[in-house]
Amino acid sequence: MHATLIHAAGDIRYEEVPDPQLSTGADAIVRVVAACVCGSDLWPYRGVTPTHEPHRIGHEFVGVVEQVGDRVERIKVGDFVIAPFYDCDMTCVNCLNGVSTSCLHGGWWGSDDRDGAFADGGQGELVRVPHADGSLVATPSMPDAALVPHLLTLSDVMGTGHHAAVSAGVGPGKSVVVVGDGAVGLCAVLASARLGAERIVAMSRHADRQALATRFGATDIVAERGDEGVARIRALFDGIGADAVLECVGTKESMDQALRSARPGGQVGYVGVPNGAPELPIRRMFNTNVGVRGGVAPVRNYVEELLPEVWDGRLQPGAVFDLELPLAEVAAAYAAMDERRAIKVLLRP
Amino acid sequence: MHATLIHAAGDIRYEEVPDPQLSTGADAIVRVVAACVCGSDLWPYRGVTPTHEPHRIGHEFVGVVEQVGDRVERIKVGDFVIAPFYDCDMTCVNCLNGVSTSCLHGGWWGSDDRDGAFADGGQGELVRVPHADGSLVATPSMPDAALVPHLLTLSDVMGTGHHAAVSAGVGPGKSVVVVGDGAVGLCAVLASARLGAERIVAMSRHADRQALATRFGATDIVAERGDEGVARIRALFDGIGADAVLECVGTKESMDQALRSARPGGQVGYVGVPNGAPELPIRRMFNTNVGVRGGVAPVRNYVEELLPEVWDGRLQPGAVFDLELPLAEVAAAYAAMDERRAIKVLLRP
Repeated sequence: MHATLIHAAGDIRYEEVPDPQLSTGADAIVRVVAACVCGSDLWPYRGVTPTHEPHRIGHEFVGVVEQVGDRVERIKVGDFVIAPFYDCDMTCVNCLNGVSTSCLHGGWWGSDDRDGAFADGGQGELVRVPHADGSLVATPSMPDAALVPHLLTLSDVMGTGHHAAVSAGVGPGKSVVVVGDGAVGLCAVLASARLGAERIVAMSRHADRQALATRFGATDIVAERGDEGVARIRALFDGIGADAVLECVGTKESMDQALRSARPGGQVGYVGVPNGAPELPIRRMFNTNVGVRGGVAPVRNYVEELLPEVWDGRLQPGAVFDLELPLAEVAAAYAAMDERRAIKVLLRP
Repeated sequence: MHATLIHAAGDIRYEEVPDPQLSTGADAIVRVVAACVCGSDLWPYRGVTPTHEPHRIGHEFVGVVEQVGDRVERIKVGDFVIAPFYDCDMTCVNCLNGVSTSCLHGGWWGSDDRDGAFADGGQGELVRVPHADGSLVATPSMPDAALVPHLLTLSDVMGTGHHAAVSAGVGPGKSVVVVGDGAVGLCAVLASARLGAERIVAMSRHADRQALATRFGATDIVAERGDEGVARIRALFDGIGADAVLECVGTKESMDQALRSARPGGQVGYVGVPNGAPELPIRRMFNTNVGVRGGVAPVRNYVEELLPEVWDGRLQPGAVFDLELPLAEVAAAYAAMDERRAIKVLLRP
């Protein structure tokens, strides 16, 4: 089969690799129907995180089950399934606590899994899925093609935006600021609207992303950043800032923007992968009682809650995909996102 | 009148100072009935924070109102009152949000207040209290002498321990670890028991404090620290750590202990004044989804909730006072706490 490898910064290749094989009895082989490129894939692409040797890449996919191991009970051959951006058993104490990203037996796509065999990257034709009964969620039936992009967002960005909102305590009547206008930030706007936030500010300087944020439920747009951005946010909210701020970037600057945009006693929910070690300034947090909660989003735990609304069309997060390419052109997909010509690129084998 | 000044590290003096005067019409003069020394008073006493010139010190007191300004409506001459460790109006947006430590018009004892006049330190005979209707809470009647220590804890340590517990999401059925066995840490144990925690671990190496923690509701004692302490905690809780960890010290080591004692998805509630800039390691927090929430405790907002239980004897946090001295011997009180001969010293003029 073919799959995507990163060889070095800027060097993405779609290459022939060995077909995956069932290995543990608890795994499954999934034929990918749609995959995509994540903002976090751009860190190695840009050389911000080093690539020491060529390796598989990609961690968001949906597909159809081709084979299952002897001990797989819930997932069947022929199921259309959503895979989270990691694998997990959904039976260990951390999974049961709602934190499946800390699964005691789980792992990450494109690397040797804790189940003892290789878990393929998500940007390929086939993927061996460890702990298939835990990792995968089957849809009620085979979806229409138009529904596939929306379902694919449950693999990462919609669940991650939702996690930012949940971590920040977003709920009815709350004021919310979203820092970051990438796919996750836009999904965080949508998640906040879904959770009943009264006012949602999207911080964005790009007309196309501002428009999508508004479509997703943003009530205000703030284009300024830094001190000016903080001043604009405070002016909107009693001079003190918002109840909840969703940090969806992961840089020192974006976290600073988030902390300063929260009111005293407010909460920052963060899901941006921390980049450049933006240690948190505890003295500012202490003085203002602004909490910080979030992390690598346990999206698998959210699928059951979000899937019904995606399935019946009430929730349409797939609008974050503004470019579609054949999987074989994956290198062009990375370039389009790197150059901000696309918010998020959908790939079909 | 007499009041306490710190002149330099280790140099505490009880000196004659001018009597306070009503100034704004919204203030009151309170005759102190009991005051005490706070763990945070030890930072300047130990020279960890510098003292550039002599100044008033002390921020925890209860007393009887001697005079009130023309515009004071709720507080009356003769009331026995509890003062929080700061002053606040309880009418601004931050006070109404439950964060009176961020009062837009409030200030700190022993310094020029935002109301335009000097607010005396708490370790003195008389104190001018700005925003008397907001800052002070009157008890239902004049308390018995035996009740005074318990009431005094509502000025800081009991409310602060409660804030740690609330910030960490302590509630029925939760597992809790308390880092720090000072008066605040012990009150955090009591607050956790009051909030229904199922299991409460006190981390303490001192027999007297271990005994008080147990009396306050601790179910387990862990004397180890660092890696050994973390291993003991994880062994107690499914190998993963506790739901809630209350950080009641404020050093880099104690925060590290707290973060590593929380289970994935758990929450650290912190109230230790950050000392030595223990910036938070965001990457660890991100990977484990451990949240951090807390800060300078808005104890004024908690008085109405806690006072009835103190008043009727159900809640007896005053047990943290294990030494009582005349206010004139305040220097000896600092020394006793500095040398850990006392958990907390009560002072009576």
